[in-house]
Amino acid sequence: MAPIMNARALFAAIPKDFPIPGETIVYDTSQKIDLETVPLNGGFLIKTLVLSIDPYMRGRMRPAEEKSYSDAFILGAPIDGYGVCVVLRSENPKVAAGKHVYGVLPHQQYTVLPSMEKLTFLENDPKLPWTVFVGVAGMPGKTAFMGWKEFSRAKKGETAFISTGAGPVGSMVIQLAKRDGLKVIASAGSDEKVKFMREIGADVAFNYKTTDTREVLAREGPIDVYWDNVGGKMLDAALEHAAINGRILECGTISGYNTGYEPVMNIHLTWAKSLTISGILVFHLEDKYDKEFYATIPQAIAAGEIKYTEEVSQGLESVGDAILRVQQGKNIAKAVVVVAEQ
Amino acid sequence: MAPIMNARALFAAIPKDFPIPGETIVYDTSQKIDLETVPLNGGFLIKTLVLSIDPYMRGRMRPAEEKSYSDAFILGAPIDGYGVCVVLRSENPKVAAGKHVYGVLPHQQYTVLPSMEKLTFLENDPKLPWTVFVGVAGMPGKTAFMGWKEFSRAKKGETAFISTGAGPVGSMVIQLAKRDGLKVIASAGSDEKVKFMREIGADVAFNYKTTDTREVLAREGPIDVYWDNVGGKMLDAALEHAAINGRILECGTISGYNTGYEPVMNIHLTWAKSLTISGILVFHLEDKYDKEFYATIPQAIAAGEIKYTEEVSQGLESVGDAILRVQQGKNIAKAVVVVAEQ
Repeated sequence: MAPIMNARALFAAIPKDFPIPGETIVYDTSQKIDLETVPLNGGFLIKTLVLSIDPYMRGRMRPAEEKSYSDAFILGAPIDGYGVCVVLRSENPKVAAGKHVYGVLPHQQYTVLPSMEKLTFLENDPKLPWTVFVGVAGMPGKTAFMGWKEFSRAKKGETAFISTGAGPVGSMVIQLAKRDGLKVIASAGSDEKVKFMREIGADVAFNYKTTDTREVLAREGPIDVYWDNVGGKMLDAALEHAAINGRILECGTISGYNTGYEPVMNIHLTWAKSLTISGILVFHLEDKYDKEFYATIPQAIAAGEIKYTEEVSQGLESVGDAILRVQQGKNIAKAVVVVAEQ
Repeated sequence: MAPIMNARALFAAIPKDFPIPGETIVYDTSQKIDLETVPLNGGFLIKTLVLSIDPYMRGRMRPAEEKSYSDAFILGAPIDGYGVCVVLRSENPKVAAGKHVYGVLPHQQYTVLPSMEKLTFLENDPKLPWTVFVGVAGMPGKTAFMGWKEFSRAKKGETAFISTGAGPVGSMVIQLAKRDGLKVIASAGSDEKVKFMREIGADVAFNYKTTDTREVLAREGPIDVYWDNVGGKMLDAALEHAAINGRILECGTISGYNTGYEPVMNIHLTWAKSLTISGILVFHLEDKYDKEFYATIPQAIAAGEIKYTEEVSQGLESVGDAILRVQQGKNIAKAVVVVAEQ
């Protein structure tokens, strides 16, 4: 069989503020691969099916010398991120062709992987598309599930506030909080997102661009648990309206990824109200909760007990646009790129 | 017996920034009391022996309508704060004359108290002056002991950083951290304080006014536990040099009490490094730890195993000056006012 194209999404330049499709992330078709003869060296060849586009990826578009919790993308190389793939050929007896695998994958059509380290086999459930396994049943869903379990100390009858409540993390948190019997306040940046948050159970849902967050929290609070994906002024408002012994779960700071972090003015309220702020990184919690997550969440999604939305774009050529939309908050649902159907 | 003077320290005006002795806190000698005939109404008459001057008191010098974790001082009335007193007369069978009592007392020489609610009897230890029971064996010592026990999750070999390490809270934390086998970095605002921090065991002690905090932390860190009494830029530096899974104990924000809170820019590092920030209010922890505290700490102080310093001023007329010195950080040790020797 002749070599075929192995399309890629390359990290081509460090963005100044927002990433620019075609400049910072470039679609590349220059590479070819022979699927039958490419050497596996004891590993296995995979075909990428779906790739996840997530807010945290902006943090990886930085100079390699700036250290952070995740590695910087390498200039000139494909970016990488959570995805699902299928095994085409294997020299590893534990990794059979036809198996589906979840984990961090390069943004390219075909890849030879050396081992299953940090990767997970997925069970095929005819009721669940593979895209689900990078969203509500993947890293974002895990972040919500594991962060909530580990840090919320939620009690029935308490009040939770969740920012970016229409996103894949926030929407899962809304549903977990409702399952635990909490009153849920949720914010997002469009009326369409507000409608979705109501549909999945939020008792109070509002558009923070047209409604004053402090007024809502003053009326509906105080807040026992705040799930923060925003930072800055949103975090300050939540601190101001936090209840005594409130818990704040720090999951992300989308307000600051592209234009610099906003100051936070109310940290003194942590001691004035005996608050706890817990930072969440899902890969520090997976060892503890992965088994419980895969044993319960995919089937709850398949049964329709946990709802989700996704915004699917087609092909690696759509990666740059999808990344920008997520950074701008223009996506209306979990952003996923489908690279191949099967 | 004729009525005698009952001197008081009154809250006379809300300070704009730093409190002004004689203006915001006024010494008053207009009141008289007859110790033999003053009606007790089932309560007891006490004589104030020592009063504590603490940083948090600035927060109480605010308009009554501004809510906070502690009540505002009442304009025209004596301020109140932690103190030790002796019972002179009693109509309560459980409160014998001659007993010593610890708790929040009005800043006046004599007071009729209705009950022992929120007050604690103290055992007389000839090796310990009463001043100790408002310092290292009082609220500041309890704050350090209970906050450290509840939130530090300290492990032998870890590194702790303690700001305001020469104060009554910070100096106790230094000693607790050394007892637990940690390397201790400590900061304060004068060379005299730095010397004291070294004497009580700090491995690295520095004057933050003449030494760059970030440089010290870059060299001596990363920081597993940061005890914050300062906030603002000091907290940002600690967040920057925090270790993965670091714990930050928020105890106070002296940088902001008089001139407004400084912005904090690095809160996103909580999720980037899986940090926890725990706010400490001692009166939420006393039920859990009071017994252990009084059973161990006073005797450790008497045995010289826990060291402390204090800066004693005489009489209620010194309260205004003492409060200002503490807010300015000019006190070189725990500030205490002795109202009567016995």
